Amino acid sequence: MIIELKSQATTEDLGRLQELVRGPFRTTKYLEMSGRRFIAISGARRDVSHDAIASDPAVAAVTSPDATTFFCRREFSPERTSQIPLGTQNIGDGKLRVIAGPCTVEGSDELYETARQIKRLGAHALRGGAFKPRTSPYNFQGLGFGGLELLAEVGRQVGIPIVSEVLDPRDVGKASSYVDMIQIGTRNMTNQALLKSLGAAHRPILLKRGSSSRLEELVRAAEFIVYEGNPLVALCERGIQTFETATRFTLDIAAVPTLRRMTHLPIVVDPSHAAGSRDLVTPLALAAAIAGADALLVEVHIDPERMIKPGDDAQALRIDEFAELLAQLRTVLAAVGRELAPPLGIGSHQSAVRPRRHEPNPLNVTSRRVVSRTR
Amino acid sequence: MIIELKSQATTEDLGRLQELVRGPFRTTKYLEMSGRRFIAISGARRDVSHDAIASDPAVAAVTSPDATTFFCRREFSPERTSQIPLGTQNIGDGKLRVIAGPCTVEGSDELYETARQIKRLGAHALRGGAFKPRTSPYNFQGLGFGGLELLAEVGRQVGIPIVSEVLDPRDVGKASSYVDMIQIGTRNMTNQALLKSLGAAHRPILLKRGSSSRLEELVRAAEFIVYEGNPLVALCERGIQTFETATRFTLDIAAVPTLRRMTHLPIVVDPSHAAGSRDLVTPLALAAAIAGADALLVEVHIDPERMIKPGDDAQALRIDEFAELLAQLRTVLAAVGRELAPPLGIGSHQSAVRPRRHEPNPLNVTSRRVVSRTR
Amino acid sequence: MIIELKSQATTEDLGRLQELVRGPFRTTKYLEMSGRRFIAISGARRDVSHDAIASDPAVAAVTSPDATTFFCRREFSPERTSQIPLGTQNIGDGKLRVIAGPCTVEGSDELYETARQIKRLGAHALRGGAFKPRTSPYNFQGLGFGGLELLAEVGRQVGIPIVSEVLDPRDVGKASSYVDMIQIGTRNMTNQALLKSLGAAHRPILLKRGSSSRLEELVRAAEFIVYEGNPLVALCERGIQTFETATRFTLDIAAVPTLRRMTHLPIVVDPSHAAGSRDLVTPLALAAAIAGADALLVEVHIDPERMIKPGDDAQALRIDEFAELLAQLRTVLAAVGRELAPPLGIGSHQSAVRPRRHEPNPLNVTSRRVVSRTR
Amino acid sequence: MIIELKSQATTEDLGRLQELVRGPFRTTKYLEMSGRRFIAISGARRDVSHDAIASDPAVAAVTSPDATTFFCRREFSPERTSQIPLGTQNIGDGKLRVIAGPCTVEGSDELYETARQIKRLGAHALRGGAFKPRTSPYNFQGLGFGGLELLAEVGRQVGIPIVSEVLDPRDVGKASSYVDMIQIGTRNMTNQALLKSLGAAHRPILLKRGSSSRLEELVRAAEFIVYEGNPLVALCERGIQTFETATRFTLDIAAVPTLRRMTHLPIVVDPSHAAGSRDLVTPLALAAAIAGADALLVEVHIDPERMIKPGDDAQALRIDEFAELLAQLRTVLAAVGRELAPPLGIGSHQSAVRPRRHEPNPLNVTSRRVVSRTR
Repeated sequence: MIIELKSQATTEDLGRLQELVRGPFRTTKYLEMSGRRFIAISGARRDVSHDAIASDPAVAAVTSPDATTFFCRREFSPERTSQIPLGTQNIGDGKLRVIAGPCTVEGSDELYETARQIKRLGAHALRGGAFKPRTSPYNFQGLGFGGLELLAEVGRQVGIPIVSEVLDPRDVGKASSYVDMIQIGTRNMTNQALLKSLGAAHRPILLKRGSSSRLEELVRAAEFIVYEGNPLVALCERGIQTFETATRFTLDIAAVPTLRRMTHLPIVVDPSHAAGSRDLVTPLALAAAIAGADALLVEVHIDPERMIKPGDDAQALRIDEFAELLAQLRTVLAAVGRELAPPLGIGSHQSAVRPRRHEPNPLNVTSRRVVSRTR
Repeated sequence: MIIELKSQATTEDLGRLQELVRGPFRTTKYLEMSGRRFIAISGARRDVSHDAIASDPAVAAVTSPDATTFFCRREFSPERTSQIPLGTQNIGDGKLRVIAGPCTVEGSDELYETARQIKRLGAHALRGGAFKPRTSPYNFQGLGFGGLELLAEVGRQVGIPIVSEVLDPRDVGKASSYVDMIQIGTRNMTNQALLKSLGAAHRPILLKRGSSSRLEELVRAAEFIVYEGNPLVALCERGIQTFETATRFTLDIAAVPTLRRMTHLPIVVDPSHAAGSRDLVTPLALAAAIAGADALLVEVHIDPERMIKPGDDAQALRIDEFAELLAQLRTVLAAVGRELAPPLGIGSHQSAVRPRRHEPNPLNVTSRRVVSRTR
Repeated sequence: MIIELKSQATTEDLGRLQELVRGPFRTTKYLEMSGRRFIAISGARRDVSHDAIASDPAVAAVTSPDATTFFCRREFSPERTSQIPLGTQNIGDGKLRVIAGPCTVEGSDELYETARQIKRLGAHALRGGAFKPRTSPYNFQGLGFGGLELLAEVGRQVGIPIVSEVLDPRDVGKASSYVDMIQIGTRNMTNQALLKSLGAAHRPILLKRGSSSRLEELVRAAEFIVYEGNPLVALCERGIQTFETATRFTLDIAAVPTLRRMTHLPIVVDPSHAAGSRDLVTPLALAAAIAGADALLVEVHIDPERMIKPGDDAQALRIDEFAELLAQLRTVLAAVGRELAPPLGIGSHQSAVRPRRHEPNPLNVTSRRVVSRTR
Repeated sequence: MIIELKSQATTEDLGRLQELVRGPFRTTKYLEMSGRRFIAISGARRDVSHDAIASDPAVAAVTSPDATTFFCRREFSPERTSQIPLGTQNIGDGKLRVIAGPCTVEGSDELYETARQIKRLGAHALRGGAFKPRTSPYNFQGLGFGGLELLAEVGRQVGIPIVSEVLDPRDVGKASSYVDMIQIGTRNMTNQALLKSLGAAHRPILLKRGSSSRLEELVRAAEFIVYEGNPLVALCERGIQTFETATRFTLDIAAVPTLRRMTHLPIVVDPSHAAGSRDLVTPLALAAAIAGADALLVEVHIDPERMIKPGDDAQALRIDEFAELLAQLRTVLAAVGRELAPPLGIGSHQSAVRPRRHEPNPLNVTSRRVVSRTR
C-alpha cells in the first residue's frame, strides 16, 4: 500500500499520516523517488482505513491495499523508459546496447583480448562471471574477488564498462567497487535477502528472470530492489524452463513487448543461455532486437574450445560470428527506425577499480524507514 | 526402419527383401519418394537382421531399427526446403507468405470483404474456420461444410487460395474438394487417425504444433502423414503452454531455426494465437520473419468487435493494422536479404469449388502396402 | 447455456422456449437426463435474453451464458458419484475396482493366461490395446479389430469384462460390439470429433486426461460426450507432463480429491503410465487408493520381457507383483473404511462378442436436436 | 570427482595424491564422512588423469570425472536411510514424524496454544516462519529474530523442538542458536551462497525442493550443504509448478519412492503448500505416508481466520482437523506395517534458547580445504 503525498505536504502532515497507519505487524517507510514523495506500508493492512487515508488533505493518491508493485509499474512512468547508466552510456535511451564476453572469467590474457576485440567491434560492455552458481559443488565455482579484480583491471585498461554476477549479500558492497553493473542470475531472482541487499549497492542492477518465474514475478523482484533504495534496475529475459528439450531454455520473445506494457524499466535479452547452441544465437538476437529489446547480453569467447566450463563452449560466439551479428543488428534495427548505440570512445570509460557512486542518482531516491512492530 | 533400394534394384530384389523382413507384428510398405525407392518396416523389429539387410546387394542404405522419423528429417533433403503449393505459389521458396483471415467463418459479407481487402494489401491466402474445436459443447462449433462452401465461393470470386481446419477423418475427402490447404489444429496434432487419413487427401497440410508437444513430436506427426502418402506438409509454431500467464501461449521463436535444422519441411508461424492480444501480434510476426519463417498465419477481421467467438476479438488485427504489418515485414525482410512474396495476380487462383488434384505431385509419392501379420 | 424445465412443462412450453432462443449461429438441443428435462443452447448467445428465459413460467433454472460445463459438474448430482457399469459391477459404488492387463494385445495364449490369472487374483476387468497411438509410424500400431476380436473372445471364455482404446470415430460403432468399456487415450482427450462420436456408443467411456490438460479441461471433454447422449463416463488421471524427468509423467495425486469436488463422475487412476517403471507402480497405486480413487488401471503382463513394444516392459507388473499389490490394497483400504470390490463370479460376465446395449440406461438420456442456423 | 582413500592410507599418501591432482582452476578438499576418508576435486578436470589416480595404491575408489553428486547418493549408503536429529528423536528411523504449526509466527499467545495442543495430539516439532520470503515488499516480512526468540521460548516452555526458515547467509549462525532444524524454502533451493553457509550451521537442515526443480537438482543442492561439512539434510517435496491451476502446486507423490532410490537422505512431504486448500491436505498427507515419507510438514493454526498473511488461512488445518489427520495416519500406517513415532515426553526437549551443538556428529564429518588456483 503506497501513499503519494501532495507536493505541498508538510512534515506535520507526514507525521500525522504515519501515526494514522501505525499498527502491529506493519512497517512504514518514507521514500522520495523521481521528485515525488511516498509513504509505503508493508505488512498487515486489514485494519488500515483506505478511505481515511484517501480523504486526508495531504494525500495525492493511494494504491489499493493489495497492490504488490508500484514503483516499477508502467503507470509510475507512463511516457518513457527509465534509463540505467552503463559506464558513460544509458540503457533505455532507445538505442540498442550490446553486453558481451565470456561466461566465466578464466585467464587475464584471453579476457583482455576478448575485451579489446569486442570493444573494437562496437560492444558497449564486457561481461564475465567471477562468482558462478553451478549445478554441483564439483564444478569450477569461479575465481571470486580475484576474478572481479581481473575484470576491473581489464575494463580500466581497455576502457569498457564491466558487468558481473554477485551471489551473496555479503559480497555486494565489495563487488560494487569493482563492477559497473551487478548481475543477479536466474537462480537468485527469488533470493530476497540478496535482492534487499542491493538497495544500498550504488550500482545499477541487471536482474535476470528466474527460469520458471512469470513476468509479474520478475517485476515484483525488481520492486524489492527499488523499494530498498536502488531504482536502477534493468530486467533480463534469458529463456524459460518448458517441456521442450531441443533448446536449453525457451526464449520468451513476447516478454519484450509484454514487459514494455507492464513496466518502465529497460529490457535486456540474453539469447545465449536460452539457445544453448551457437547457431541459434544470431536469429534469437535479431528477433529480440526487432521485438524492441533495449540491450542484448551475448556470450562471446575468443576461443570457445578452450573454455573450462564444459558445455558452455557450445553457445559462445566466436569473434567473427560476433562481428557478423553486430553487422546484421545494424541493418535490421535501421529497418524499424532504431539504431545500435555508438561504439565506446577511447576515453569513454573511467577506471573501474576504485569505488564510485553514480552521481546524480537519476530517480533521486532517499528513504527513511519507520518501523512499528509493537502490539 | 527404412530400407533404401539402389536405383538398379529389380522387382525380384524387392521381393527377396520383402521376404527377408516378413514377420509377425510387422508391416512392410513400399514407397517411392522424390524419385527414390524405399521399403518401410513398422512394428516388431527385434528379429530383423540389420546386418543381413545392409549387406544385401540391392540395398543402398538402411536406417537404425529405432529411427522414428525418416522422410521428414533434414537428412532426407539436406540442401533445400521442400516447397508446398498454396494456390499458384509455393511456401518454402525463400519468400515470405502471409495467410490471413478471421478465426471463424461467420457471414458471407464480412468474409468477402475481408478476403478482398487482404488480397489487395498483399496476403497470399485466406484462412477461416468452419469446423471449430472448442473448449465446450456450448460454444459455437462453426458452420461446418456450409462454412467451407462459403469459403470456397469467396476464394473463387476474389481469386485467393483458402486454408481451413478439418477435425474428423470422415470429413477429409469432402473438405479436400473445397480448400487449397487443410489445417490440422493444435488439439489434433496427436490425433493419429486424423493424421493417417490425410495420406489420401491430395491437398497440402498445415500441421500445427500441439501446444504441449516437443518439436521432435511435431516432426513425428508429420512423418505419419508423409508415410501414408502425402509429402506436402508445412509445420506451424503457434505458441506453447508454459507457466507464464501474461500471454495466452508462449511463442517459441527458437522453433524456427531449430526446425530448420531438424527437417526440410517449410515452417509457418502463427503469432496471433500465441499472443492472445492484438498489440503483441506485430512484434511477434516481425520476430518470426527475422528468425526465418516461410509463412505467417495471421488473424485478421474487418470488425473484431462483431465476432461471435468471445475472446478472439482481442487478437484479430484490423485491416489498417494488417496493412501496417505488411509494410513493416517488407522493410524488415529486405534488411536480411529476403522479401515478401509478390501479391496474387487477378487470374492467379482457379475456382476452388470443384474438387481438384495438385498435378504433378512434387515429391512423386506412390506407395503399396504389404502386410504380414501371421505368426 | 442450459435451461432446466419444470417437471410440469408442456410440449407447448418447450416449443415457446425453443422459439425464444432460436437465432443465428446457435444450436438448441432437448435432453432428458436423470429424469430431468433440459434445453441446451450452443453457439452465439449475446442476443439471448437471460432474464426473459429465467422469468418464463416453465423454466426451473438457467445457467450463466458463459457456463462451459453443466451435466458433469458436481452440482448436477451433489450427493453421490455416478455409477458406470463395467460388466455386472459398477465403478463408483464406493468399492475399489482394478482393471488390469497388458498395454498391447499381442498373442492369444498370453492374453488368455493373463486374463485367467488376474481374474483369479481379483481383478475386475481386462485391459489391452488393439489400436495403439504411437510415437512413430514405424512402431507396431496394434492388431486392430483382430485384436479386439481376440480380447472379446478371451473375455467371453474367462468371464471378465474388457476395456480397450478406440482412436477413430469410424471405429466406434464396430468396437462397441466387442468391448465393455471404450478407452479414450491421453492423446485424444482434445479430439472432439472422437468425443462427439461416443455419444452414440452405447458403451461406458474411460476418458483419460490429456497429459497437458487441466482438470477443468478434462471435465469439459467429458461434457462433450454426455452432451451428445452418453452419460456413462469415468475420468482417468494418468500422469501429467512436467519438467521432472525422473518419472515418465508426474502423477497428479491431488486430482482425485479435486475431481471429486468438481464432478460426480467416477475417478480412475492409472499409476503405470505415470510411473514408467515397475517399482513405482505399487506405491502410486496405494496412494491413489488412499486418496479416494474409484478404480485403478494397472499394466500387468505375464512375461514383461517378451513384450513387443519397447520400453513398456519397464512398467508392467508381473503376476506375483500384481497379487502383492491387491493384497496391500485390501489392507490399506480397510484402514480407511473402504474395500476392494469382490472378485468376479464364474457366471459374472456374459459373452462380449455380440453387440449389446446396457439396459436400462442409468441416467436415462434421450436427446433431440433442433438446429437453427438461418440468419 | 571424488577419491576415496583406503583405510590404511597414510598422510604421505594423502600428500602425494593432493600433489597429483593439483592444478589451475581446481580446488581440492579433504573430507571424513561416516568413518571414510575422501579427497574431493572441484573445478577443471580435463587434465586430471583418472587412470593415474585409480591405479594409485592408496586409492580405494574414484568417481567419474563428471559426477555431480556423491555423498548424497543412495550408493554412498546403500542399506539404510540417514537419520537426522529433531530434538531427541531422529527423522529417518522408519517411523513417521509430523512437524506442525502456523505458516508465520505472529503472536506469542496463539503460538504457545498451538504448540501445546499439537504436542498433546502427538506432533513431533513446531514449525513457524519468522523470516518470510514474500511475493512483494508490501507484504508482512515476518518478525525476524524477534520471531525466532518467541519460537525458541515457546519450544522451551512446551517442550517441543522447533523448525524455522532462514533466508540470509548472514543470519545462519545466530538462527542456529534458536532453532532445532533450519528450513531452506523453495525460493532458495538454488541460492548457493545460502546453501554453502549451512555447512557450518551445526543444525540439521530441512531443504525444500524448488518449485520448478527436478529431483536430481534437489539432491545436488543437498550435496552443496554436505560438501561444506553438514551431512544432516532432509529433503522436502512440497509441490511443483505445473500448468494445472486447480491446486496451488502439483504434489509430486512419486518423488517419495523416487528419492528413496536416488538418495539415502530422509524424505519429508509438505502437503499444505501443494494443496493450497484445507480439504486437500488430509488426502495428500495420507497418500504421502503410504508412499513412504519419513516426515510430514503440516500447516496448523488454532484460528486460521485470524491469520495475517492473506490466503494462507485457506490451507491451515484447524486443531480438530489435525487431530483427525493424526488418527487416520495411525490407522493407515499400521496397514503397511509402519507407525507414527511416539509422542514427545514431558522432558523430551531441552531448552532451545541457548546455542547448542549436536554431539556427536552422526556422520562424523571433518574437512580441510586445500586450494590451488595458481596457474
